[in-house]
Amino acid sequence: MSNDLRRKRLEQQIAFLTEADKLKNVLRRTTLTDASRRENSAEHSWHLALIAMVLSEYSPVPVELPRVLRMLIVHDMIEIDAGDTFAFDKIGNATKKDREQRGAERIFGLLPGEMGNELRGLWEEFEANATPDARFANAVDRVGPFLQNSATDGGTWSTYKLSRDEVLARMDPIRTALPDLWPFVSKTIDEFFRAR
Amino acid sequence: MSNDLRRKRLEQQIAFLTEADKLKNVLRRTTLTDASRRENSAEHSWHLALIAMVLSEYSPVPVELPRVLRMLIVHDMIEIDAGDTFAFDKIGNATKKDREQRGAERIFGLLPGEMGNELRGLWEEFEANATPDARFANAVDRVGPFLQNSATDGGTWSTYKLSRDEVLARMDPIRTALPDLWPFVSKTIDEFFRAR
Repeated sequence: MSNDLRRKRLEQQIAFLTEADKLKNVLRRTTLTDASRRENSAEHSWHLALIAMVLSEYSPVPVELPRVLRMLIVHDMIEIDAGDTFAFDKIGNATKKDREQRGAERIFGLLPGEMGNELRGLWEEFEANATPDARFANAVDRVGPFLQNSATDGGTWSTYKLSRDEVLARMDPIRTALPDLWPFVSKTIDEFFRAR
Repeated sequence: MSNDLRRKRLEQQIAFLTEADKLKNVLRRTTLTDASRRENSAEHSWHLALIAMVLSEYSPVPVELPRVLRMLIVHDMIEIDAGDTFAFDKIGNATKKDREQRGAERIFGLLPGEMGNELRGLWEEFEANATPDARFANAVDRVGPFLQNSATDGGTWSTYKLSRDEVLARMDPIRTALPDLWPFVSKTIDEFFRAR
């Protein structure tokens, strides 16, 4: 590679990594376990990577943890443009796909071509939720909010007056991809709704 | 493993992952690139993992990216107890090691023994900064704040009236572990101090 191309490549990578900082300003509905404030998508992504490291032993099918970590680290980056769309926001979800595709185009497009394509591919795999790695990553993406909601008297389950069936449906990726966790998760949800 | 041991193991892992949420409340001195607020150690750890993914090609010695990612994901967890110690805080740094060892004992001690030891080992390797993986991870730990400080008119370099030599010394792990980035980093620092 010529020096010019090398310099250009590094500049693109630096621009992408600087832009990435904005994910720290994208707020989700879920709060921290102390209910002090809403969680942002960057710290959420960190928490998911840690959850994947600790719980990968429970996947009933082999998963490639290094790919899962890379997938979780980039899985919300399109929210820098598209914002976080709450799972139970019907109107937001009608336009979500379009907004996120445009976000992916711009954000992963900041990187050198082959690297941008690779990270975009990981995000698309997460969204399609069809491979063992993606199914495990999606289950992990439910475990984080589950822990926070169960530590904050139901959290968003309570704030947005969700029904037991809605919460169970939302958590279903845990039932299929982390079945050993399901008794604990479903029992916690049952107890929350019984006590209301 | 008996069902009781299995249940105990999962309970320990869940307790650790719930405790981990507190890292989102540990504030660092560095601000976000829009200077709107101080960064927390959880979102910082996410940013570093992303930086490692994008810049690992520049390491002049082979590094094992999956280990580096796991190292970066846990490298600040002891701050839940020990707090973040600013690199230029002399008094804080005198007691840092003790506070952090006690933090490591408690926090990694929440996990099942062999898993806690593994993650604690990654943190200790990061701190010792003696292996290629740790040296690369420590360089990455400088790149994040560098990007944020250079986007915010010097950020903490300016707020804490650091000298050019202090900043260059702090950034030195980049010079040795990511030498291709050094011309860009040192030029940015030189320009900042020349313009003051």
